[in-house]
Amino acid sequence: MNLGRGVSLVGGATTKFGVRAATWAEIAQEAGEALFRSMPTLTSADVDSLFVGAAEPERFAFQSHVAPFVAEQLGLAPRRVVQRTELACASGQSAIRSAYAAIASGLSDVAVAVGVEKMNIPSMAEANTSMACVMDRAWDGAHGATAPPFFAMVAQRHMLEYGTTEEAFAAVSEKNHTYANSNPNAQFAEKTFDRAKLGRLPVVAPPLRLGDCSSMTDGGAAVVLVAEELASKYTDRPVHVRGTGQYADFHNLANAGSLTDWVGLKHASREAFRSAGIGPSDLDFAEVHDCFTISEIVEYEAIGLCEPGEGGKFVLDGRSSIGGDVAVNTRGGLLGCGHPLGATGIAQAVEVFDQFAGRVPSARQVPSPEWALVHNLSGSANVHSVMIYQGAS
Amino acid sequence: MNLGRGVSLVGGATTKFGVRAATWAEIAQEAGEALFRSMPTLTSADVDSLFVGAAEPERFAFQSHVAPFVAEQLGLAPRRVVQRTELACASGQSAIRSAYAAIASGLSDVAVAVGVEKMNIPSMAEANTSMACVMDRAWDGAHGATAPPFFAMVAQRHMLEYGTTEEAFAAVSEKNHTYANSNPNAQFAEKTFDRAKLGRLPVVAPPLRLGDCSSMTDGGAAVVLVAEELASKYTDRPVHVRGTGQYADFHNLANAGSLTDWVGLKHASREAFRSAGIGPSDLDFAEVHDCFTISEIVEYEAIGLCEPGEGGKFVLDGRSSIGGDVAVNTRGGLLGCGHPLGATGIAQAVEVFDQFAGRVPSARQVPSPEWALVHNLSGSANVHSVMIYQGAS
Repeated sequence: MNLGRGVSLVGGATTKFGVRAATWAEIAQEAGEALFRSMPTLTSADVDSLFVGAAEPERFAFQSHVAPFVAEQLGLAPRRVVQRTELACASGQSAIRSAYAAIASGLSDVAVAVGVEKMNIPSMAEANTSMACVMDRAWDGAHGATAPPFFAMVAQRHMLEYGTTEEAFAAVSEKNHTYANSNPNAQFAEKTFDRAKLGRLPVVAPPLRLGDCSSMTDGGAAVVLVAEELASKYTDRPVHVRGTGQYADFHNLANAGSLTDWVGLKHASREAFRSAGIGPSDLDFAEVHDCFTISEIVEYEAIGLCEPGEGGKFVLDGRSSIGGDVAVNTRGGLLGCGHPLGATGIAQAVEVFDQFAGRVPSARQVPSPEWALVHNLSGSANVHSVMIYQGAS
Repeated sequence: MNLGRGVSLVGGATTKFGVRAATWAEIAQEAGEALFRSMPTLTSADVDSLFVGAAEPERFAFQSHVAPFVAEQLGLAPRRVVQRTELACASGQSAIRSAYAAIASGLSDVAVAVGVEKMNIPSMAEANTSMACVMDRAWDGAHGATAPPFFAMVAQRHMLEYGTTEEAFAAVSEKNHTYANSNPNAQFAEKTFDRAKLGRLPVVAPPLRLGDCSSMTDGGAAVVLVAEELASKYTDRPVHVRGTGQYADFHNLANAGSLTDWVGLKHASREAFRSAGIGPSDLDFAEVHDCFTISEIVEYEAIGLCEPGEGGKFVLDGRSSIGGDVAVNTRGGLLGCGHPLGATGIAQAVEVFDQFAGRVPSARQVPSPEWALVHNLSGSANVHSVMIYQGAS
């Protein structure tokens, strides 16, 4: 780590997330337009590289070879480095890590990372079936072991081992949906969910109810990363990449270890903390992958924000809210914003930039932050990607 | 370029290419097995990263999230860095460039890059249709502008502009198929094609005949890249990455410029030569992307091995054969080996390692090579990736 030069995040923007009357290509274009509009000093000629995070455009949109495709949609052709990264639900942060490595190693100076997914398609049966190929198709996907049943098993096991309650799950959902109310680009920006209402929603996979699950969402997001010495051209509030870690564990569910002890996330976050030279208690805010409410609870524990088994109490006590130990998922999380697979990791980084820039609505602004962590996972929580950012002091 | 530390290629192996009675997963596993068998000092514990180059596993094999999937197939889980790169037909070299950047920037020390594709599936109509989503699906793919008609237009235009003949196309095919006869893993290792026979094969898209086109192939390949200071642990013949360049031009065919002047390849190869500090005349051998015979002819010109328009004469005069100016496609090329999309760029690198190691059959061994170039393109020749390697002196 840190053998190459420093890398900074200097801007970002997202499209509206939701069920969009727009094609995959139009969403990509909209993300690019939002990015350039938000960064008056960025010209297309400055950008030498494009990294596209997308999980399944081949299935959702019958479009492969998406990197040069998006380059053209954004007016970014020709370019030196153009590449798409696929890591299922973590494709977005995978694109950011690729941009980081390209800049640190000298392949690139100014890189745009774009995440796009269009999941609401004419045949939702086709869309849902396509989600099964994220798993081992023959052993798990074909038998229906997609995300909701897997995370429901995690929830059941956490309840059994630690006495975690459905109220704790609802507290995660309530918190993240409340923050989403101050994010106009969130899928559920207009909707309110209190714990009582959440407890009356239909069960998807017991004990998880509709409000415990992120949704099938259309959306795009884009960020710019540059060599640290170039950052001042684009912003007076650069955010610096200080650490990163990633860990891939099992893939076939038969090879999974403990459902509630996410070893991969422990390794990824420890590597990220070590490279940044800080610990969990230094964090001011975090974007973590709340694809389901139980995920956020297990993540508190694996990242080291609280002890094993105490994740439910952590959220119920308000320690993951603004004003608590560490503000988690202030943009509204995957629960409030929706989860357009490849766009999520990029949108998390946009929130990091906006928080440090002090440009989010006051209802979700973290006061004077210095350190932030972003966690993006994929599949059955079998791959974990973590980045640590430091704002300009 | 070269801001980070040096990176070396220390080993590689391929599966048998062809129409294989094997699944996508089995081919991946076979590539990994061949790699480890070829490298006695490599243990799975050494490998901290895995990069998978695959173009369309979601469509050909209904399997996404392939990076952790392959990690498990190869006994390489858990790992720090796991990622899949997709750049259509250039997905393989894109994985190698990602591994290069990860090592140079310090994210990785020992990386395996694997390329896999399984294109012969029960419904070849489905397989052929899936090739259309490499193009802009709405503007080009839906109208049948897939690879054969595009490269046929390039061939027609080259004939018109420069008087290039069908005999020159056949000379490329004859040369590469002849080299493939000394490569037991080539799809057409057993078949002989002389120019007269090639001229009698059926026309696919005029003027291109069957022998001018690479095929739908199943195959896998794997290489190991390491930080230069670690290379001696794995081989006494390390091959060093000295330069790389990539360029993405248009995507939609309506935005293409000249069909015969591949500007993207000119930029990519110039950047690679500049970073390596050498020129075209320094090359001893080259692996270039002969998806069609005309491609190799245009590539000679764009890389600077000969003047514009002289590519046909270059091959007819034997200047791209062993003993000529530069030995091109000694492993047999895409024409002789077949073209399992994501595996091709990795298999090209395997040939580079094997040539420098002096371990290919004498019929295709380049005498005492020092410099090699690899070119991998994607789509309608709209993205070009180039790497330059130097053998140990």
